[in-house]
Amino acid sequence: MTASETVEVRGHIVDSLILAKILDLIVDAGADYRMIDLDLGTSHVDPSTARISITAADASDLAALLAELHPHGAHPVETGDLVVKPAEAGGVLPDGFYATTNLPTEVRVDGHWIEVDRPEMDCALVVDDDGPAARARAVPMHRVAAGDQVAVGLAGIRVRPLEKPRGASPFEFMTSEVSAEKPKALLVARVAERLRAAKAGGGRLLAVPGPAVVHTGAGPHLAALVREGWVDVVFSGNGFAVHDIESCLLGTSLGISVGEGTAAEGSHANHLRVINQVRRWGSVRRGVEDGALCGGVLYECVRRGVPVVLGGSVRDDGPLPDVLTDVVAAQDAMRRHLDGVAVALVLASTLHAVAVGNLLPASVEVYCVDINQAVVTKLTDRGSQQALGIVTDVGLFLSELSRQLIG
Amino acid sequence: MTASETVEVRGHIVDSLILAKILDLIVDAGADYRMIDLDLGTSHVDPSTARISITAADASDLAALLAELHPHGAHPVETGDLVVKPAEAGGVLPDGFYATTNLPTEVRVDGHWIEVDRPEMDCALVVDDDGPAARARAVPMHRVAAGDQVAVGLAGIRVRPLEKPRGASPFEFMTSEVSAEKPKALLVARVAERLRAAKAGGGRLLAVPGPAVVHTGAGPHLAALVREGWVDVVFSGNGFAVHDIESCLLGTSLGISVGEGTAAEGSHANHLRVINQVRRWGSVRRGVEDGALCGGVLYECVRRGVPVVLGGSVRDDGPLPDVLTDVVAAQDAMRRHLDGVAVALVLASTLHAVAVGNLLPASVEVYCVDINQAVVTKLTDRGSQQALGIVTDVGLFLSELSRQLIG
Amino acid sequence: MTASETVEVRGHIVDSLILAKILDLIVDAGADYRMIDLDLGTSHVDPSTARISITAADASDLAALLAELHPHGAHPVETGDLVVKPAEAGGVLPDGFYATTNLPTEVRVDGHWIEVDRPEMDCALVVDDDGPAARARAVPMHRVAAGDQVAVGLAGIRVRPLEKPRGASPFEFMTSEVSAEKPKALLVARVAERLRAAKAGGGRLLAVPGPAVVHTGAGPHLAALVREGWVDVVFSGNGFAVHDIESCLLGTSLGISVGEGTAAEGSHANHLRVINQVRRWGSVRRGVEDGALCGGVLYECVRRGVPVVLGGSVRDDGPLPDVLTDVVAAQDAMRRHLDGVAVALVLASTLHAVAVGNLLPASVEVYCVDINQAVVTKLTDRGSQQALGIVTDVGLFLSELSRQLIG
Amino acid sequence: MTASETVEVRGHIVDSLILAKILDLIVDAGADYRMIDLDLGTSHVDPSTARISITAADASDLAALLAELHPHGAHPVETGDLVVKPAEAGGVLPDGFYATTNLPTEVRVDGHWIEVDRPEMDCALVVDDDGPAARARAVPMHRVAAGDQVAVGLAGIRVRPLEKPRGASPFEFMTSEVSAEKPKALLVARVAERLRAAKAGGGRLLAVPGPAVVHTGAGPHLAALVREGWVDVVFSGNGFAVHDIESCLLGTSLGISVGEGTAAEGSHANHLRVINQVRRWGSVRRGVEDGALCGGVLYECVRRGVPVVLGGSVRDDGPLPDVLTDVVAAQDAMRRHLDGVAVALVLASTLHAVAVGNLLPASVEVYCVDINQAVVTKLTDRGSQQALGIVTDVGLFLSELSRQLIG
Repeated sequence: MTASETVEVRGHIVDSLILAKILDLIVDAGADYRMIDLDLGTSHVDPSTARISITAADASDLAALLAELHPHGAHPVETGDLVVKPAEAGGVLPDGFYATTNLPTEVRVDGHWIEVDRPEMDCALVVDDDGPAARARAVPMHRVAAGDQVAVGLAGIRVRPLEKPRGASPFEFMTSEVSAEKPKALLVARVAERLRAAKAGGGRLLAVPGPAVVHTGAGPHLAALVREGWVDVVFSGNGFAVHDIESCLLGTSLGISVGEGTAAEGSHANHLRVINQVRRWGSVRRGVEDGALCGGVLYECVRRGVPVVLGGSVRDDGPLPDVLTDVVAAQDAMRRHLDGVAVALVLASTLHAVAVGNLLPASVEVYCVDINQAVVTKLTDRGSQQALGIVTDVGLFLSELSRQLIG
Repeated sequence: MTASETVEVRGHIVDSLILAKILDLIVDAGADYRMIDLDLGTSHVDPSTARISITAADASDLAALLAELHPHGAHPVETGDLVVKPAEAGGVLPDGFYATTNLPTEVRVDGHWIEVDRPEMDCALVVDDDGPAARARAVPMHRVAAGDQVAVGLAGIRVRPLEKPRGASPFEFMTSEVSAEKPKALLVARVAERLRAAKAGGGRLLAVPGPAVVHTGAGPHLAALVREGWVDVVFSGNGFAVHDIESCLLGTSLGISVGEGTAAEGSHANHLRVINQVRRWGSVRRGVEDGALCGGVLYECVRRGVPVVLGGSVRDDGPLPDVLTDVVAAQDAMRRHLDGVAVALVLASTLHAVAVGNLLPASVEVYCVDINQAVVTKLTDRGSQQALGIVTDVGLFLSELSRQLIG
Repeated sequence: MTASETVEVRGHIVDSLILAKILDLIVDAGADYRMIDLDLGTSHVDPSTARISITAADASDLAALLAELHPHGAHPVETGDLVVKPAEAGGVLPDGFYATTNLPTEVRVDGHWIEVDRPEMDCALVVDDDGPAARARAVPMHRVAAGDQVAVGLAGIRVRPLEKPRGASPFEFMTSEVSAEKPKALLVARVAERLRAAKAGGGRLLAVPGPAVVHTGAGPHLAALVREGWVDVVFSGNGFAVHDIESCLLGTSLGISVGEGTAAEGSHANHLRVINQVRRWGSVRRGVEDGALCGGVLYECVRRGVPVVLGGSVRDDGPLPDVLTDVVAAQDAMRRHLDGVAVALVLASTLHAVAVGNLLPASVEVYCVDINQAVVTKLTDRGSQQALGIVTDVGLFLSELSRQLIG
Repeated sequence: MTASETVEVRGHIVDSLILAKILDLIVDAGADYRMIDLDLGTSHVDPSTARISITAADASDLAALLAELHPHGAHPVETGDLVVKPAEAGGVLPDGFYATTNLPTEVRVDGHWIEVDRPEMDCALVVDDDGPAARARAVPMHRVAAGDQVAVGLAGIRVRPLEKPRGASPFEFMTSEVSAEKPKALLVARVAERLRAAKAGGGRLLAVPGPAVVHTGAGPHLAALVREGWVDVVFSGNGFAVHDIESCLLGTSLGISVGEGTAAEGSHANHLRVINQVRRWGSVRRGVEDGALCGGVLYECVRRGVPVVLGGSVRDDGPLPDVLTDVVAAQDAMRRHLDGVAVALVLASTLHAVAVGNLLPASVEVYCVDINQAVVTKLTDRGSQQALGIVTDVGLFLSELSRQLIG
């Protein structure tokens, strides 16, 4: 009645806590294990290999447990080829479809392992062609076409969990808990150092700013980072864009004077007047080209050719004509700009931060800055495994970051 | 060089703090005032009238100040008719357009004051027809058509600020600060009492639940409130809907067992499997009609004919086919269901809460329940002037509320 | 059966919202009022006077209402002399004792109004001597001696509520809501400006730092402010003091390297070793004098003769020998250092912030800096009416403040 | 130049993550390791043993690393007897003193391992007598007398880290992250179940309530738990005690009517009048015995002989005569009541929660209830390793808990 399977896992599985996590999951599931073989590197530079025989109460429990172990890189020793089924209709997956992780993934087709293109979480895994030309892609559910060959089950699929960065790695300081009580100037310096390293390595920097960037007076600092070439792509929403333009055209942000900190007279509708003005221009780009918009983050983006994706939200006023009001179209637009992104800087933006976290591969470094610890914890729990939450004031953070990067 | 104007304001302007606020704004603006006439009711049941002569440094300062005073009901004694200009293009308003408040508003057309239909904040004010048949409406910017007659400036427009509820009013307890340290069972009892009163008066109840309603185990309580007829319309998003269905089909919420509180094995993709299932059905309604979905909030809504508007968001997985992925279409769909809404119950839903706050007239009572004080403060600062923020656990709140309303 | 009284209130009672608040309280109490006389200044520079006849259901309701109106400066027109009763025992007040506010207060003794020495909230009001030599003091309950003449009831007592600062006042920007979404560099500049003004006017600056000042790396910035003469007195606790010394002696704060941001090896007991070392010295002062402690906030305080009061708490390790472990003695020690304090800077310190808020007169400007909005709201709701809550990161705040004040 | 040592660790070190943590610390410290011997239980019920040879850059690095490994149960294979030095003066420890953990600890005296009495964190370890009569105690620094034999270094000391509870254990649900989004009724049921189990096993229950228990209207629920015998000892402060008595004597809590939720007239000084009344009685106990105090948590404690320790704080008004104003005396009083405590229920009490966390052995289960996630995270990071943070409303939590325990 009981069901058994032998799984194998390789890498720095001991000090990266991967092996411990796997044994933990087995025991939590009420199953039993026998360590068949544990080849521990004798020193910490050697990778280790473990083979573990697992016995569960029945085949169903075993299958569930294997699904839990899968994203930790523990895969059955004996696996066949990938199994696929055709999608029955557009946007509808076959039963038992494999849901992707954001980790590097390989699939076995005709006995050969091939790498999956740009991994993305919570997608279907679609295989094109057969034999040597076979190609595997992570495809969001809504873009799966009827008849697409969709992976089902776990057979023939393996992932490589990220190992904890080590020693000289500048990521070491990222291992500690999210807390407001950290040396802040130091954190900013480390982030600056990581951005320099990423850019030096040819990586692109994605910025995801929320409206508080403008409200806290940090708009000019972010604009400077764009102007000086630090930022390669921007994802945001209507609110940030409107306040960025409002602060340049009218000197206010939600009607509060950016220069005085007090409510500007007659200004409660300023954001509406700005939206109306951009609607008249036709687009932000047109406003810049016509010389009507002369500063701010979006202005600098237009001038430097930095792509901006503005995704809509049900709370939007207006919105600006540049906003993609269809949220699925907005997601697809963001996907088109992810190639080469090595670092994401999430700046006081809850909604777009979650959206971005869903789209990024686990290998992208993500820095989430927010003054609310609960928000930071939520964001760093998702998406990238290389996420650092920084509980601080985004206004003072960007001021200090631009001072360090630009001087 | 200086510019002057005499304004008048009526009502319970002294104890409702309206007069004080007006004088405050005048002085803050650096202008000077002379109280020409103050007819204070001798006792607090009598309305008062004040006429105030205002002198500002110049005409521009005066205009800005009058715009600030406008939403507080202080209007120039001598006002002409409403001034309108045609919209130059679809979705583009004339310069100087009047931005609406969410207060009861009248406009003067041909010497007669007419009431504006269903006020909504941050809209254009459009006048149809002329003369006796004239009608005035608040129209969202994107729905203004080329040639529509749009109000500009403040001439011929007056609003009636809400007066603070008094004495025996059950709203009295709503005046205090947002804080977690309130007698909670008592707050729930008062909210229950207000819901009973609103329903007894023929008002409709709008519920705006977020995903935490399901995560905290309160889904069945909200479902019961729908089943028993307390809820008349629901606005929410993909996340709440998916978790509501997931908890009914699979007994989990984001993969966490609703009955055990622990991660269910192999369940991290449960929400995706649920979305896929509904996509196969075609819609939630179809799932209910086919007998595939047998419980939960949405099930009860379908069964009782309670309309549900699900607005999309860039962070959505899937989404469900029932979600309006175009956010402007989602806003318009919500507008179509606002008639007769007397009370809104916002349940741990930040995004949709702000959206709803933007749409509601000031006269709707809003109860915002969230465990995060910053969220509650933000929500109650907007929209309705009759908003009560309740800093508490939505799970225990709904459990207690359904106990009080249903028993 | 109903009971009546005529009260009078003077000052800028209209635009300071004082009159509105008074009418509000009357109506909330279910009483009725008649405005007997309202002499409104015709322009906003003139003070106003109001006489209001109040009628309540019975004498008891009237007495309760008059007690509510008292701190708003509305006092019966006809009042006799102050009524006193002797304290029956040390630390035990007579029934009906008058509980002080933190506002400027006068009492009528033998027909003459005399000013109360240094007002403090929630104290007894004790009168010494009689006749022309009479003196009135706010005395904390525990320091009232048997036989002290203690004020009972409201007769012969009047307070002067603070009027809202106006126009050119740098306090104008303080009127807005507590929120994280403010222009931060601007807020820091305004605070710097206020500190300069207070010091220029001969006022003393009280700093109340919490441990997060050290954890966030801002210790050196606060130390610099002390060294340059900006800080005149420091109130804090064992935690801040220990971490300040630990960061100087060992380069860590709670075992986290202040220079690296990572856990220093073998360092979890560093704070205990530091406490033990200071116990061996005998006091912090001795450590400085012996050359063993060479930096940090406390070092600078000793060097410049800035008094430091460290109050104990039940969570203290050790504590340092400098800590006043008796909390009542600690309160009394703080009281001895309040003379001339014009500004208090509360830096991420919840416990001591509340303690300080209880002790300060309302006329002291208080700036509360904390990253948690709920804490800031709580602190600014108490004590001083001139309190500004700043929701930000204390580490970056102090770095920016010292840059602005010292350069 | 390099320095080496072989350490050993035993127990369920693999699935409890203990081995992984140890290897992690070694690598983080820049040292190298060789796994000499790893005797993994073949199934998860067997304990494992690991022997690891560690090589660090020098003797100093090695010593620091061994100190880091010590609390994880990794001790040098070859250890001599405990080394002690006399305390040079009262309250001053010898250099290199051993700082205790809150884990079960043994010391080797004359070649025999003896158990340390009641472990407590951050204390000195004092050995009394010699030879067979030797006894070892954790002693707070301030209570060490001159000449006491105090342990220095790590030689002859070993600790037993708690292993993660497993399988059928009701603690399993405690492993997840602190978050507000948990099924709340379920959490309450689990806590109720744990309390029943602890009491059934003869354990004592410690309650640590803060003032918000009264403000949120949960006082009567906690009083009922005391009355029905669930609570064995209470640690709290002046604020909770005053509001508890105020709610019984006057029906208010900080002047807010507990029954109405609105400010009671003339009530801002109610807490002072209550304090004065208790000072007149002489103590809370006297008030109960004289029949003057007839309800509330403290009343029930007096009636049932449940000991209450009230520790002072610098923010206290009054305080009540029952408050221990010396904080070190308060800590010592709490220590005297810890014997047999198996569960601690911390209820919206930040200050006393940290104090209690410092005093408790790691084996005590701690449930921290607070509405602020940052507070809960902070509390559960300290003290007991068996701590569960519950982000919820303490008012509704206690109402539900008393319903489940008492009905």
